[in-house]
Amino acid sequence: MVEFDNYKLVDKGVCAAKGFKAGGINVGIKPGSKKRDLAVISCDTKCTAAAIYTQNKVKGAPIIVTKEHLKNGIAQAVIVNSGNANTCNSNGIEIAEQMCELCANELGIDKNDMIVGSTGVIGQKLSIDPVKNNIKTLVDSISEDGSSLACEAIMTTDTRKKELAVEFTLDGKTCHIGGISKGSGMINPNMATMLAFITTDVKINAELLHKALKRTADITYNMVSVDGDTSTNDTLCIMASGLAGNKEITAEDKDYEVFINGLYAVMMNLARETARDGEGATKLMECVVDHAPTEAVAKSVALSVINSSLLKAAIFAADANWGRILCAIGYAEGDFDISKVEVVLSSSKGSVKVCENGAGVDFSEDEAFKILSEDEIVIRIDMHDGADKSVAWGCDLTYEYVKINAEYRS
Amino acid sequence: MVEFDNYKLVDKGVCAAKGFKAGGINVGIKPGSKKRDLAVISCDTKCTAAAIYTQNKVKGAPIIVTKEHLKNGIAQAVIVNSGNANTCNSNGIEIAEQMCELCANELGIDKNDMIVGSTGVIGQKLSIDPVKNNIKTLVDSISEDGSSLACEAIMTTDTRKKELAVEFTLDGKTCHIGGISKGSGMINPNMATMLAFITTDVKINAELLHKALKRTADITYNMVSVDGDTSTNDTLCIMASGLAGNKEITAEDKDYEVFINGLYAVMMNLARETARDGEGATKLMECVVDHAPTEAVAKSVALSVINSSLLKAAIFAADANWGRILCAIGYAEGDFDISKVEVVLSSSKGSVKVCENGAGVDFSEDEAFKILSEDEIVIRIDMHDGADKSVAWGCDLTYEYVKINAEYRS
Repeated sequence: MVEFDNYKLVDKGVCAAKGFKAGGINVGIKPGSKKRDLAVISCDTKCTAAAIYTQNKVKGAPIIVTKEHLKNGIAQAVIVNSGNANTCNSNGIEIAEQMCELCANELGIDKNDMIVGSTGVIGQKLSIDPVKNNIKTLVDSISEDGSSLACEAIMTTDTRKKELAVEFTLDGKTCHIGGISKGSGMINPNMATMLAFITTDVKINAELLHKALKRTADITYNMVSVDGDTSTNDTLCIMASGLAGNKEITAEDKDYEVFINGLYAVMMNLARETARDGEGATKLMECVVDHAPTEAVAKSVALSVINSSLLKAAIFAADANWGRILCAIGYAEGDFDISKVEVVLSSSKGSVKVCENGAGVDFSEDEAFKILSEDEIVIRIDMHDGADKSVAWGCDLTYEYVKINAEYRS
Repeated sequence: MVEFDNYKLVDKGVCAAKGFKAGGINVGIKPGSKKRDLAVISCDTKCTAAAIYTQNKVKGAPIIVTKEHLKNGIAQAVIVNSGNANTCNSNGIEIAEQMCELCANELGIDKNDMIVGSTGVIGQKLSIDPVKNNIKTLVDSISEDGSSLACEAIMTTDTRKKELAVEFTLDGKTCHIGGISKGSGMINPNMATMLAFITTDVKINAELLHKALKRTADITYNMVSVDGDTSTNDTLCIMASGLAGNKEITAEDKDYEVFINGLYAVMMNLARETARDGEGATKLMECVVDHAPTEAVAKSVALSVINSSLLKAAIFAADANWGRILCAIGYAEGDFDISKVEVVLSSSKGSVKVCENGAGVDFSEDEAFKILSEDEIVIRIDMHDGADKSVAWGCDLTYEYVKINAEYRS
């Protein structure tokens, strides 16, 4: 995890913020699977809440229901299943609504204060029975230590839990922001995760909460790409309990800045871990673009490089095939001068410049191989053509990616 | 190959058209390699000529030189090497010009009538010595049976030769159009091949030749995608000798239509074979979109589906994971109604409808598996939302793609 001054990493994920509890159990969404597959996060009080969703025209039924429920900017709990996306099914909305109702009744809250999510295979009907038969057990599993159980329950092909919280001071009060996330395949900007749930005890109004979430997503989750496929179910939610006791944030003032920096610390790390855990990935690729003529160009170049299948395969092999980097820069959108571009590859083993003024320079292939054999690779592109910058995250392309996606439904 | 009425498939590739000869030899562009790596195509007379090039901002030096030479719409010969792209090198243009000059001198023609191409690794300097030392042998290799030698010499990771010619009647004369092409990796629209060379003996002016080439590329090569990477060196050239004896085509009349339909027969087949031979591919995927609201939507949907890594991996496994098709349709550009979409999968083993009105329908997984186990898969998408259509071609994503691209430079 990348650490930030004034934001201390703490345990308990989505339960670090005051008022939140979570749980996760196995209910058999996929018959025969023993993996936890149903998660809940709930708060002692009603929260201000905001969410952003996939840009895919095919939207999972849970998104349609959650959007409706969040119209008033208020939520109190989340229910999420893995193993089935509840998408492209004729009765999907009905099922998503039933999930909300069952959970709300058991929690004793309003069903319209529920957020609902689903992740897994698209186009297979989701039976309500496993949820209905186990809703009491799910709610009974809720505790202040339940974040990692919820985190496990939302995983599909993820190989690591993505869970994080930070503690910081705002308006003299100790505050928290925490989150859990699942990603893995079908990861591409807008949004770069299938599901992420963030909680905080900071008091902030719904409008600014949404604004902060959107702005932070644009430079974190929306800069992650695993395979260029944008999922139908991507959802990023935040709930703010207000229990930290700070004076409510209602303007883009200094307190807002402290809050949004904390949000960045959490979301950037979750997004980065999502890239690292891309399906079949063995390496995290970070592409830093600097001195670009505009931020749009910087973003386009960073994502173009991170998305190149050819480069991703070369990085898997620790091969400094920088021509593929130049090629990917070349098909990025926007106006810029390719003949000024400089490229440096680095990792914990050192740095090597491979390209200057848009053309190759002599370098040691042995040294480059050593650098690229590490598991966190930084591709630094200096465009020498302006003052804007951007960072994108991705991963290498491996045999395992093909294997996972050739066998996903079986 | 797909056959078309009135256009007879004939042998001899680029040498089928009157006046053209070709050759190809090994000159050791990559030290140690014994593969043919230098090709030549030449014509007895000056030809009208046209070309279209990669949209990548990084353009190989041969493109810059060829563009300059084709300003007058005239060419007489082509020289192409594989094994090195002559791109992102400080002396690239100089080398490309030397290749033209050496070849033109040996052929006894004007160096400004030369087309030059290179394909292979980007960013490694290309020595002129192998070309200089062997230019006489290359030109001596030229014959009327040399098309397949030239075709071999332009291959990189291609596993099959892409070579074709058709014979047809125009203005009462027997005419020909033939071509050779290489593709494999780094294949994406604008352009979907690294190199293709087309010859014809039809007499047609340079302006209409360019127009026919552009229009046909838009529905053939520009609808092929292997991995979403757009190469720096893509070049599609056509030379017309005029030796068939027809009255010169100078307007978009009936003769022009006969010509452009022949050009489609050649380019569509070459493009399709390029998709089939995508790096590591085991299957050709053809996506046919029908009843779309606009041609732009039809194209966008077809390419989105053909490009989905998740779907490509599923097709490799013969898994009818149609949710990934819906998902890919959902992130295509343009306005359309996803809830009307119907999807049918087919091959020589039959057809199976997997989705109707944007939602799944019951089907036999066993039957779908049998259909998808063939090596030519058609994904037919009926949008029930208009009258426009489009076809795109791609291939499955396999372990072998990763292997080839992880090891390409070694």
